Amino acid sequence: MKILVLGADGYLGWPTSMYLSEKGHDVAAVDNYSKRKIAIQTNSESLIPQINLHKKAETFKRYTGHNIIVETFDCSCYKNISSFIKHFNPEVVIHFAEQPSAPYSMIGFDQANFTLTNNINTTFSLLWAVREFSPNCHIIKLGTMGEYGTPNIDIEEGWIEIQHKGRKQEFLYPRQASSLYHTTKILDTDLIWFYVRNWGLTVTDLMQGPVYGLLTNQTKLDEDLLPNFHYDDIFGTVVNRFLIQAIAGIPLTTYGSGNQIRGYLNIIDTLQCIFLAIENKPKKGTLKIYNQFTEQLSVNQIAKTIKEAGDKLSLKVAIQNIDNPRKEKENHYYNASREGFKKLGLKPTLFTNEVATNLLETLLKYKDKIDPSKVLPRVNW
Amino acid sequence: MKILVLGADGYLGWPTSMYLSEKGHDVAAVDNYSKRKIAIQTNSESLIPQINLHKKAETFKRYTGHNIIVETFDCSCYKNISSFIKHFNPEVVIHFAEQPSAPYSMIGFDQANFTLTNNINTTFSLLWAVREFSPNCHIIKLGTMGEYGTPNIDIEEGWIEIQHKGRKQEFLYPRQASSLYHTTKILDTDLIWFYVRNWGLTVTDLMQGPVYGLLTNQTKLDEDLLPNFHYDDIFGTVVNRFLIQAIAGIPLTTYGSGNQIRGYLNIIDTLQCIFLAIENKPKKGTLKIYNQFTEQLSVNQIAKTIKEAGDKLSLKVAIQNIDNPRKEKENHYYNASREGFKKLGLKPTLFTNEVATNLLETLLKYKDKIDPSKVLPRVNW
Repeated sequence: MKILVLGADGYLGWPTSMYLSEKGHDVAAVDNYSKRKIAIQTNSESLIPQINLHKKAETFKRYTGHNIIVETFDCSCYKNISSFIKHFNPEVVIHFAEQPSAPYSMIGFDQANFTLTNNINTTFSLLWAVREFSPNCHIIKLGTMGEYGTPNIDIEEGWIEIQHKGRKQEFLYPRQASSLYHTTKILDTDLIWFYVRNWGLTVTDLMQGPVYGLLTNQTKLDEDLLPNFHYDDIFGTVVNRFLIQAIAGIPLTTYGSGNQIRGYLNIIDTLQCIFLAIENKPKKGTLKIYNQFTEQLSVNQIAKTIKEAGDKLSLKVAIQNIDNPRKEKENHYYNASREGFKKLGLKPTLFTNEVATNLLETLLKYKDKIDPSKVLPRVNW
Repeated sequence: MKILVLGADGYLGWPTSMYLSEKGHDVAAVDNYSKRKIAIQTNSESLIPQINLHKKAETFKRYTGHNIIVETFDCSCYKNISSFIKHFNPEVVIHFAEQPSAPYSMIGFDQANFTLTNNINTTFSLLWAVREFSPNCHIIKLGTMGEYGTPNIDIEEGWIEIQHKGRKQEFLYPRQASSLYHTTKILDTDLIWFYVRNWGLTVTDLMQGPVYGLLTNQTKLDEDLLPNFHYDDIFGTVVNRFLIQAIAGIPLTTYGSGNQIRGYLNIIDTLQCIFLAIENKPKKGTLKIYNQFTEQLSVNQIAKTIKEAGDKLSLKVAIQNIDNPRKEKENHYYNASREGFKKLGLKPTLFTNEVATNLLETLLKYKDKIDPSKVLPRVNW
């Protein structure tokens, strides 16, 4: 199949592009390096050095013989995206092309405005371009579990039937996020759902939890094919920050109580989910939503697993609670459905001691490049 | 109080500005005439001639002695809105400054993109400007009943408590609109609710139904003070289109079955609601949502009332069903709460035969300027 990956320079975009290419698909990988630019501006560059996308594609081809088309343009511009879709005529578009940092979106007006504009306009331009030039194309959009926030009722899979005063109606599950970044994903969902109803587009929206992990069958071919790895306060997830703190010999800093629960998954499972989403194209004119994670973990559980793995590697890991820089509930109910991908046969790779140990071992060779000052929160909200 | 009205050249913006000025408030009225520009571009100009805002303010002052400050800038630009808010330091901002036509938002990419960008950026820039320069200011935002769509359960007042699997949680009432314009108002609500939670802003969001009527205590002072009146397919509401069809001697064209039900209100009641919203500022850091309409009417009921009023004026009014140019449910449940303003003492002016007769009489003097070709739908979706 012809598959277009938007945001192909990102942590997941590049491994996904290689994975699908190796499965025999014609992959076009597009990015404008906006995340790299933000990383430079905020002194938050990837710990693992990143060659450019053209060079990554060359390296990948050297190992596998597979050709990935690389294009560098801004996907938020309708002219760019529509002319490329007209030319390439994809059967699947995988849309990762959004500013993905919650803290960045909360720094100030310019950063918030960029996040809003980039994310909404990319989704909007993509919807119009697909409608115009490839209306039967399957759009696979990366949303986030963060769209739901932490409600006091079970989180269903994108939709909920509400019974009210003796009547009932199915709705999009009400969303309420805790950063502007996450809120832009809600706006995306609203736009997508409107145009699916109106134009009969075919979309899968993946409500993904935080992803961890580095090694896939393709990324492990060569160090140059590894995805970017951020441990800083801007792009670093809690798992990444803890891994680096363990390696650097500084305490793992949990924000507040550490009882915040979210649904996490391994990068290998992201690839599985993308594969399953492609294989299970929704009926024309429908929006299918999956919750994309494999297990619910609290921040404290993640810290404990990394501490145990680190201690086994003689890293002597301490854990320290610090003031929460974010406005979020620290003690809350959290029970999210993940039945969709389970039914499609997803085989989860869980965050075990062994997985944490492997990650620490992979990252240990970058120990000298770690700057501990980048880990602590610089953005408060 | 110092009150800033954004979108002051609009159908409601100008009557609201005069109304509040006459109540003794310091009113600043801002618009960039974007609706006039769209009206020219789509051959949909107001039936009632419109002098510019500066001249309207001069005319109003001549009659009342009250001074309305007029400024013409684009409110979607953060620099504009923030520097004006810094300078004027309003206690209340009333935000009407959005592209208000559903059909316009559905014409093509450029019109959709303008609607999205203008509406979201204005709300976003306003939220940031208020946070930065006037954080205790009360923002009164015009939303629309159209945000809710036509769900099969009762429409509550902005919020709903969902009981699910033995637990419960209050949410924003799930929204699902039937045009891009209405969807941008959903995005506005999402952004507002996020920043209210995050920054402690104080906002009243008015979910308003379609408004009809021309005469208020201020607009009737002089013909030059009348609000714009659109009967075309772009800006004309169903009430306005029927009034003009009755006068022009052409059948009232109901879209589809005519059983579409919405909540309507008279312009006099819009002013009352704005007054009540100002008088009842929400607690700091909260978002108060009112459903702003006074009665539920079907398209067929509106047609019947206007036919009866027209027949009394010997206009010989016929009614004709035409194919629905829109994707919307034609036969549906509709039961929306309007308890909020009722409790605050709103005295409704209903769409009686007499009200319709008065409107027809006011409009009859523009009969020669009516272009019947502008009434039928040019935009299908």
